Amino acid sequence: MKSFSDKISIRKPDDMHLHLRQGEILKVCAPESAKWFQRAMIMPNTIPPIINSERLISYRKEIEEAVFYRNNRESNIPKENFTPLMSFKLYPGMKEEEVIKLSKAGAVAGKLYPEGSTTNSEDGVKSWKQITEALSAMSKLGIILAIHGEKPDSFVLDREKDYLPELFQIIEHYPDLKIVLEHVSSVEGVNAVINGPVNLGGTITIHHLLITLDDLLGGGINPHNFCKPVVKTPKDREAIQNAALSGNRKFFFGSDSAPHPESLKIKTGGNAGIFSAPVAFPLLVSFFEKNGSKELLENFTSRYGAEFYNLPLNSSSITLERKESKVPERFSDIVPFMAGATIEWDISTSE
Amino acid sequence: MKSFSDKISIRKPDDMHLHLRQGEILKVCAPESAKWFQRAMIMPNTIPPIINSERLISYRKEIEEAVFYRNNRESNIPKENFTPLMSFKLYPGMKEEEVIKLSKAGAVAGKLYPEGSTTNSEDGVKSWKQITEALSAMSKLGIILAIHGEKPDSFVLDREKDYLPELFQIIEHYPDLKIVLEHVSSVEGVNAVINGPVNLGGTITIHHLLITLDDLLGGGINPHNFCKPVVKTPKDREAIQNAALSGNRKFFFGSDSAPHPESLKIKTGGNAGIFSAPVAFPLLVSFFEKNGSKELLENFTSRYGAEFYNLPLNSSSITLERKESKVPERFSDIVPFMAGATIEWDISTSE
Repeated sequence: MKSFSDKISIRKPDDMHLHLRQGEILKVCAPESAKWFQRAMIMPNTIPPIINSERLISYRKEIEEAVFYRNNRESNIPKENFTPLMSFKLYPGMKEEEVIKLSKAGAVAGKLYPEGSTTNSEDGVKSWKQITEALSAMSKLGIILAIHGEKPDSFVLDREKDYLPELFQIIEHYPDLKIVLEHVSSVEGVNAVINGPVNLGGTITIHHLLITLDDLLGGGINPHNFCKPVVKTPKDREAIQNAALSGNRKFFFGSDSAPHPESLKIKTGGNAGIFSAPVAFPLLVSFFEKNGSKELLENFTSRYGAEFYNLPLNSSSITLERKESKVPERFSDIVPFMAGATIEWDISTSE
Repeated sequence: MKSFSDKISIRKPDDMHLHLRQGEILKVCAPESAKWFQRAMIMPNTIPPIINSERLISYRKEIEEAVFYRNNRESNIPKENFTPLMSFKLYPGMKEEEVIKLSKAGAVAGKLYPEGSTTNSEDGVKSWKQITEALSAMSKLGIILAIHGEKPDSFVLDREKDYLPELFQIIEHYPDLKIVLEHVSSVEGVNAVINGPVNLGGTITIHHLLITLDDLLGGGINPHNFCKPVVKTPKDREAIQNAALSGNRKFFFGSDSAPHPESLKIKTGGNAGIFSAPVAFPLLVSFFEKNGSKELLENFTSRYGAEFYNLPLNSSSITLERKESKVPERFSDIVPFMAGATIEWDISTSE
């Protein structure tokens, strides 16, 4: 259904949840995000994790080098085209002093990983009571609390639902803290955001918006559609789609694009994470063309996230044209989301 | 919980649902079943499938050779220790004449694979109305209808539930036909068998009895726990456990052990099937020791299946002793169920 014209311009979007990793993977993946997004909230679960201002500063530098310099030469991406927004990883006993330093270094969010919930979370937080000093500091400083909202020892499809009591406790104890329930994946998660206070938001990924367990194990098993929280049932997907299309400013885009080399995905005990950065935005355009509107798309990708984070809206725009292309099977040794599929939109080459 | 003595003898068990494949895989896997089971119902989804008496006879011969002769020498498995029970694959338009020939050649079951439901089912049956002549013949001849009860185009967790209307139609049209809903995997499947007529039975696998989606994708993704029907929720598992422990003679053991080389499991689009033959019986002993009784175990593995199929009970027994051992990581290039785990029972070496 073509409800958009064949060439559309929208305010440049932000990706409010992005894993860029380090080293070679970072070099391959960061430009794919910079191609589409003006800003991206960079997740801190690197090895070692981003837990102090020194690491935050050096990681930001590494990211900027990956985007703006390639093979010791300036890349063709201008500096004004991409800004990494930095976060840090909360850890038990974290001090206010550290949070203040991180804030001064530019951190805009602190990420709470329940212990054992996903990639590199073995050293995570067992209870919010272990991070009360940090949460108080974040509340005062206006730093967002970004939560991977899963209870790791629950049944895999119930983990988000079972995390909600912990979320509600945090909300109750820190009424001024802004909180994002990241990558909402279930009816219950969506409803918690809708019914929660005004300073509770939720990010939505492209994969939770488009796929279900059918795409992970309905035919042969597809490790490239395996992520945490795992994609769930058609009912859960419907709730997520309705949230994205509702125009509710609590919901905004965060890809959770999370690259792993193919060898770490395709094995026994393969890693969770979907590398969606190269395709997320054009897929969103198609989704909103079919089910929503250009205005809803722009609010979801380019307004509500910035507003929630108290950031200025991006002033430049991105122009896309209707042009079919095939998603590459690989970016280096990383298989992207929808590898081999046809996408309908690309960045316009004739502005 | 040790409620059994350290050495137990029970009537030799039958595996009423087994994939042995062909060629090298058959040679590796068939002796693993013959080690524990007196008889096994052999599934016909080979390439090409078992659809006529000639193929049935030559496949049975191939199986017997794999068990009783190895490397052109007689194996150490005596002929009286293992009997393959043969089945054939139903196909659209199958004639009564073919069913009669298959029956004469020794077929005791006809397998219905809905088109696209599992390994090598691309040429399956779209509706029971395509196989009415065969079903009538089976009903007259006392051949069991074994059904892979999944509606392939439904959401993966709903496929068994959504197949049940088709099952009920078959029951209604063929009141004298004995039917097995194979590898029941859901609350709804279990309840259908319980509430259905007396000539409807259900097989239960060791993996649906023991694991859930948590074991497939709760940590890293584990392709070796991927099967069709897919393992489901703790509630579904509980219903299956209760059925196995209920003493209801409609439920009996069928492993659905289904080997694939590791390379076909660990890949994008990896095959469904769990190779459980080497561990299924000792795991059942542990499960019934913890949750049931020796009598319930023996009925489940060595009586109810034979009775449903109108076969004599096995006259010999198997003696196991409590002895820990590690499940091998591989049998040739096939990774077994519970690879590397400790099992608590082994065949007694001192009778």
